[in-house]
Amino acid sequence: MPAARSDIDIAREARKLPIGEVAARLGIPDDALVPFGRDKAKLAPDFVRSLGQRPSGKLILVTAVNPTPAGEGKSTTTIGLGDALVRIGRRAAICLREPSLGPCFGQKGGATGSGMAQVVPMEEINLHFTGDFHAITAAHNLLAAMIDNHVYWGNAEKIDSRRIVWRRVLDMNDRALRDIVTSLGGPANGYPREAGFDITVASEVMAILCLAEDLADLERRLGEIVIAYRVDRSPVFARDIGATGAMAALLKDAVLPNLVQTIENNPAFVHGGPFANIAHGCNSVVATKTALRLADYVVTEAGFGADLGAEKFFDIKCRQAGLQPAACVIVATVRSAKMNGGVAKADLAAEDVEAVRRGAANLGRHIENVRAFGVPVVVAINHFATDTAAEIEVLREFVAARGAEGILCRHWAQGSAGAVELAEKVAALADGGTARFEPLYPDDMPLYAKIETVVKRVYRGVAVTAERGVLAQLADFEARGYGRLPVCMAKTPYSFSADPELLGAPEGFGVHVREVRLAAGAGFVVALCGEVLTMPGLPRRPAAERIRLDGSGRIEGLF
Amino acid sequence: MPAARSDIDIAREARKLPIGEVAARLGIPDDALVPFGRDKAKLAPDFVRSLGQRPSGKLILVTAVNPTPAGEGKSTTTIGLGDALVRIGRRAAICLREPSLGPCFGQKGGATGSGMAQVVPMEEINLHFTGDFHAITAAHNLLAAMIDNHVYWGNAEKIDSRRIVWRRVLDMNDRALRDIVTSLGGPANGYPREAGFDITVASEVMAILCLAEDLADLERRLGEIVIAYRVDRSPVFARDIGATGAMAALLKDAVLPNLVQTIENNPAFVHGGPFANIAHGCNSVVATKTALRLADYVVTEAGFGADLGAEKFFDIKCRQAGLQPAACVIVATVRSAKMNGGVAKADLAAEDVEAVRRGAANLGRHIENVRAFGVPVVVAINHFATDTAAEIEVLREFVAARGAEGILCRHWAQGSAGAVELAEKVAALADGGTARFEPLYPDDMPLYAKIETVVKRVYRGVAVTAERGVLAQLADFEARGYGRLPVCMAKTPYSFSADPELLGAPEGFGVHVREVRLAAGAGFVVALCGEVLTMPGLPRRPAAERIRLDGSGRIEGLF
Repeated sequence: MPAARSDIDIAREARKLPIGEVAARLGIPDDALVPFGRDKAKLAPDFVRSLGQRPSGKLILVTAVNPTPAGEGKSTTTIGLGDALVRIGRRAAICLREPSLGPCFGQKGGATGSGMAQVVPMEEINLHFTGDFHAITAAHNLLAAMIDNHVYWGNAEKIDSRRIVWRRVLDMNDRALRDIVTSLGGPANGYPREAGFDITVASEVMAILCLAEDLADLERRLGEIVIAYRVDRSPVFARDIGATGAMAALLKDAVLPNLVQTIENNPAFVHGGPFANIAHGCNSVVATKTALRLADYVVTEAGFGADLGAEKFFDIKCRQAGLQPAACVIVATVRSAKMNGGVAKADLAAEDVEAVRRGAANLGRHIENVRAFGVPVVVAINHFATDTAAEIEVLREFVAARGAEGILCRHWAQGSAGAVELAEKVAALADGGTARFEPLYPDDMPLYAKIETVVKRVYRGVAVTAERGVLAQLADFEARGYGRLPVCMAKTPYSFSADPELLGAPEGFGVHVREVRLAAGAGFVVALCGEVLTMPGLPRRPAAERIRLDGSGRIEGLF
Repeated sequence: MPAARSDIDIAREARKLPIGEVAARLGIPDDALVPFGRDKAKLAPDFVRSLGQRPSGKLILVTAVNPTPAGEGKSTTTIGLGDALVRIGRRAAICLREPSLGPCFGQKGGATGSGMAQVVPMEEINLHFTGDFHAITAAHNLLAAMIDNHVYWGNAEKIDSRRIVWRRVLDMNDRALRDIVTSLGGPANGYPREAGFDITVASEVMAILCLAEDLADLERRLGEIVIAYRVDRSPVFARDIGATGAMAALLKDAVLPNLVQTIENNPAFVHGGPFANIAHGCNSVVATKTALRLADYVVTEAGFGADLGAEKFFDIKCRQAGLQPAACVIVATVRSAKMNGGVAKADLAAEDVEAVRRGAANLGRHIENVRAFGVPVVVAINHFATDTAAEIEVLREFVAARGAEGILCRHWAQGSAGAVELAEKVAALADGGTARFEPLYPDDMPLYAKIETVVKRVYRGVAVTAERGVLAQLADFEARGYGRLPVCMAKTPYSFSADPELLGAPEGFGVHVREVRLAAGAGFVVALCGEVLTMPGLPRRPAAERIRLDGSGRIEGLF
């Protein structure tokens, strides 16, 4: 049991291989690597292109029940499963999202796994890594500067400066920048207007980078970004002010997949990290497809619970990229079942079999939902020290009663050895060829009907309502040729409904659409159901106050 | 003659060596490198520390006459001289500043030399390079976020939110962000206040990174930053709100010197790039000292002309770091002499010997000034195709009449072969041991007297005047223990005076100090004489509109 050692201690004790040796495990030659230090690399563009004709390995999604404050361990399970697939002799790789820098200084820990299932180098992945997020920030803000500059120098495109929809971004938790007024200080500084900053992971540039097939597709999508509207309400695109070439130049390296390793020295692609609410919450298509051409099994994760994460993985990422998932792992825990069953966080340590039974309803609905996409399911019961045998047994029986298997996993404590049974089951499922993946709705369904379909079939709400104007807005998107896009639901991750208090498997609720937004470059229409914070704030005692360098230049307090 | 080839063509045709081979030329072992791709590296911290006890090579400053729109070629001469020193058999290295990303998209070209005297990889050095500026941006803005967060959560330090002096930064030309109002939108977003953004090179964090001796000194200096004042006017420091450890963690790699190569495969340290007006305009002390411990001759540059650049190099960088410059090269051109002699840019191609003679007065004063610091001088006459023999001869005689040598250099056209005579002269001067470096004024001179000393002895103004309040402000700095700091003059670079129209060697002028600012972390007091723009804007037709990727993913239009 590693209980006495923290995640950072374990990560630092890991015996890392030179990244070239990790790459060699997937047959990547040394000259296909662009090294960043000794333990990180990007794959060279020529090499990535050269893989285009190779057959694809099997894609395995790791998703979860609705998140609770107890923590489920989705990234940790993705890593543990990847390591375990290698342990049982399979050629496997994992694909994770890159962590955001900003929240590291707030209260969130890193996003590189935990216990004996981690990717390394932990500090660097959590901080600047290979600079992808900085490049996205720069490209996003260059477009913003060019918009105000265009208006300043005569506004040839007749942008209505009250209807500029492109905000700025920083990879920082900074509530003071949410709502600002810019261009104050006189004529030399332009035309004052209301504006604001989001965190970088909320940038449409991030979503584009994660959905683009390659650099050319990236540039095309950047051009499609709607930056503003004219007085006649026609959209102004990024390409209209000549911004897309320079943005693509800033992103030419960021679009290349990053390779690191697990603490068991297995290859991990960590690339891209869009928000899972106003965006689709998956790692990049480029990394996923590259991994699929190099490995027989690729394990990847999606954001939040399966209602948001898996649905968007299937309906946005797989639909756009033509991916065919072979199997899906739903991560569940005794603790989260208890919380969904009504137990308070403080009381989680006490055995409560009935609460597990009640709360498992949440898991049951996710199992049904994933199967509705035609993807076979296995449940990973991520073990915590306080779980009792009776509680685990209830959860396992609940899953079995639904025709699936619930497999207890101890990768947090034991690494790959703790997830061998899961790996065997997942490999068998994927090899079985039973997947018949279909997105939830066809491209040609009207946009509002797509929203209704997700709400009724995935969330199990009874109805969708919307602010006045939403229907007209959607009709306008359809008239402009965006009717075939999928919808990206932005709602609370804590409940199937839009009310974070409705845990378990709620019924009879409606979902209200407050606003819809077109992400024409990313290729989806965002439906905002409730408040979504796109620029976090720092807490009363930010983690930044505890972070420091020790005498040898190592970082303390980051995790 | 390379006239038919652009700088970018020459840079791309350069046959780069693997960076490890370049490093080996200075005896840097492979395991002391942290690679960034194949052609860029940082030096590992242990290696940098291990050099501490080695003897120092000879430090050579490259400065220039007051800049004109004709262009003088200071970076180009620094590179050409470094290459030529190697050509004549010396162990030499060059130290340059890192270019800023923002201006690349405006109208300024890159900052990596020109013609046959360049450092490579040009595109990458000019864009994200090794991420140093992104790290500085993040550290700066983390402090800003923590300030507003501190006020938001009860303001234990009693910061007067009207007197927060720490702005935010972006490495972008964005005039709309110069003056803004933040924290609008209601109680959840904090207390609205006036704020603004500067460009990253104007950040005090940049100046600190460039003046710090090592990571520990960096962290100490970060703590000294004055972020705000209380109602009682006492300063609040970055350390008071617990920000310095996290800032140092963000900067722990940025503080390490970057190694690249010239197109002749000689080692070049490109590290740090503070503004030369509100800051000191030199590359980092860490890089300079590292280079001095590895090479017998280190050629480095300072910003703008010698009135600003050399004076700050001597009085701020050398004073703080204990550096002893051995020789100084002043770059002059026939064209800039003509412009200082009253010729318009459009008329520069026509021979005008008298104008050269008149304009050379500007050069003459710089020669005297540098000698006043006890540093021997040689003048590099950077050759342009339109120069006539008679014009060059006038300039050479002018320099000879002042007891120095004016050496015609053709490194732009010929590379190191065109600067052999300069290299021989510089090596002889440095080896001669005639330098008796002394800063212009002692530490214990009062701050206002330091300003007067620079104005009278370097600029040759007759008097200093100041806004009401400046004297009291300086007295307050002195009372708080900052009286021993050097002053950092922020004025126009185009004239010895504060009036950009007064070319040549003006006399009889006064200099007015508009405002003084304490940069307690960097360790100087800024005297603002005239308007200084710390956030540029984009021009009517920004370079960004022409920048794009060609079919093979190479950048077009950046230069």
